[in-house]
Amino acid sequence: MTTSHAVEANTESDAPPASPSHGSGGLIIRQREPRNLEFPFDRLDSYLTPVESFYVRSHFHAPELQRDSYRLSVEGAVKNPLSITYEELRRLPAKTVVATLECAGNGRIFLIPQRSGAQWELGAVGNAEWTGVPLATLLNRASPGGNAREVVLEGADRGAAPEQPGPPGQISYSRSLSLDKALDDVLIAYAMNGVDLPQDHGFPVRAIVPGHYGMASVKWLTRIRVLDEQFQGYWQTTDYGYWDEVDGIPVRRPLSDIKLKSAIARPRTLEVIPGGQLYNVYGAAWTGAADVVAVEVTTDGGRTWAAAKFVDPIRPNAWRRWSYDWKTPERPGRLTLMSRATDAAGASQPDTFDERYHSYVIHHTLPIEVVVR
Amino acid sequence: MTTSHAVEANTESDAPPASPSHGSGGLIIRQREPRNLEFPFDRLDSYLTPVESFYVRSHFHAPELQRDSYRLSVEGAVKNPLSITYEELRRLPAKTVVATLECAGNGRIFLIPQRSGAQWELGAVGNAEWTGVPLATLLNRASPGGNAREVVLEGADRGAAPEQPGPPGQISYSRSLSLDKALDDVLIAYAMNGVDLPQDHGFPVRAIVPGHYGMASVKWLTRIRVLDEQFQGYWQTTDYGYWDEVDGIPVRRPLSDIKLKSAIARPRTLEVIPGGQLYNVYGAAWTGAADVVAVEVTTDGGRTWAAAKFVDPIRPNAWRRWSYDWKTPERPGRLTLMSRATDAAGASQPDTFDERYHSYVIHHTLPIEVVVR
Repeated sequence: MTTSHAVEANTESDAPPASPSHGSGGLIIRQREPRNLEFPFDRLDSYLTPVESFYVRSHFHAPELQRDSYRLSVEGAVKNPLSITYEELRRLPAKTVVATLECAGNGRIFLIPQRSGAQWELGAVGNAEWTGVPLATLLNRASPGGNAREVVLEGADRGAAPEQPGPPGQISYSRSLSLDKALDDVLIAYAMNGVDLPQDHGFPVRAIVPGHYGMASVKWLTRIRVLDEQFQGYWQTTDYGYWDEVDGIPVRRPLSDIKLKSAIARPRTLEVIPGGQLYNVYGAAWTGAADVVAVEVTTDGGRTWAAAKFVDPIRPNAWRRWSYDWKTPERPGRLTLMSRATDAAGASQPDTFDERYHSYVIHHTLPIEVVVR
Repeated sequence: MTTSHAVEANTESDAPPASPSHGSGGLIIRQREPRNLEFPFDRLDSYLTPVESFYVRSHFHAPELQRDSYRLSVEGAVKNPLSITYEELRRLPAKTVVATLECAGNGRIFLIPQRSGAQWELGAVGNAEWTGVPLATLLNRASPGGNAREVVLEGADRGAAPEQPGPPGQISYSRSLSLDKALDDVLIAYAMNGVDLPQDHGFPVRAIVPGHYGMASVKWLTRIRVLDEQFQGYWQTTDYGYWDEVDGIPVRRPLSDIKLKSAIARPRTLEVIPGGQLYNVYGAAWTGAADVVAVEVTTDGGRTWAAAKFVDPIRPNAWRRWSYDWKTPERPGRLTLMSRATDAAGASQPDTFDERYHSYVIHHTLPIEVVVR
């Protein structure tokens, strides 16, 4: 073992290497296969999340579908079952919407004790412009029967159920929506920020269900089934479900709407911040319900709160970035920052996690601990 | 749902907000409690990892020890058992060494299928300057008996064993070393990069075992026990162990030496890189055995390799950063980069993971997938 009482000058405090060019994008690996990749949320700097920075949530190995052989069927409780090709879909009248997708487990790393599932921190969320055909267009052509109640969206991705209770053998990734929601604003999308969907985001076609957690926006969508009954698939009973209560009796329900939330992008956890200066606290806020109308920031662990300014206008189901100039304290120490959003109905983010959701819907005020020096 | 066929100009591609000042440091949360925090390895830019960026690996809740009441005992198979205070320790002749610590599970996220344990990507590694008293000084004062064989380092952190088979009730974090290693270069450290150890790094006193995976460098060190026999504690039999083989029979052994490894800090996974330009590929290489003498980089998934240049000199048990100027291809596409280190004994990193280690010692060439555009 070599010992040294001082590190040589040439290695002690050197500048970053001269770098002729560096790239953009890049994701934090939370699981390598199936791919579960997180947007480094501290890099938030645009309204639309670039495609290459958009978080990836996959339940099974990504299927490799081909444009030429792709078919989307609309079947079940309909008068005119359909099977349409990719080219046919592209020729139908299209619509473009901006929508924020958030994984229902985003923020899970904040839960103590640790819960099973991908250990997302802040960045399993993104905001993009989606282009495609309204699901209503396809449903109206297929003509649901008079007793139709739900629409099941089924992806081409398949595998063993990851948790118990799970059915034997392989299952596909399938989720249902009420017929009302399906006819309202759901998009059968083929483009994201103006380019064809990448494979990780559901190429060639995925659903976009504005206002619902990302699990509803089924990727690699190949089958749409209309049902006269309530769907009881694995991905809304065992997984992506929660315990509601009817007359004191717990009942299992599928997760759906994105709950009101805000998150701090900068500073990062344990960032070291100079004292006695202005620091730009920066983040985003979103909800699947009423519009976000206010964000407050605390820099003293919740004792006092100050209003942040919005960077973006209100657009339903899309996030609004916000910003707050913080005069950092002169005195060194550890501080806890939090942000808190309020919506147009007057509701604010809760202070604590709602345990009925077990490992999902982590939308309470999340503590970001920083070091002032 | 509001729809829009084009995003308004004021929100489409805006620059990052004017930020009066931003801080340094910041860690990726892999587990919040106990704290397991990863250095964002793509931020590598100094030989010594700043204290606030150094990865944190904790097995139990961090104990809050006080300087005034702190005692370190040296006991067991010794002629003169000791109990020394923090102040006494600080008055003994000190030594300062630079050593790289790497968690034995660093890179676990690259293993398919996923293994249990903290899902480290690249940054459960850091290089720091450690100051303290040689363990040999304390052992020589205590005077081990003639049959002494091992030295057990015990931390003040306690809790239930996380995996099976585990003993009932609470256990402390304890690891043993051979008496030879303990008398060689192990440090009983109280400072890191010239400042007192922070709580997350073992305040007030921890062991530093140069060349061994981080699990050997016991934090919150309060007891040193000399044994006449081989120690069979949980943290080297059930956990932090691997399957060796004797005459065809698998036998359990504790992990020890850091294996030869290199890692790419930049580009990051799925970084988007401009084509037809120079890109500075940058990383570090380290080993607990013979010195690292060469690093090669492939930018075509392993077909061809080119030599990188070292940024740092050789210093045993400390990393060497390296750099390689890559002329990126004109043609867009996805490419896989890897780096491969060679040591002074002529050994190189393997191409594949050695399954005997199950979820540890991930030191093969790790693929970094990037997008050229």
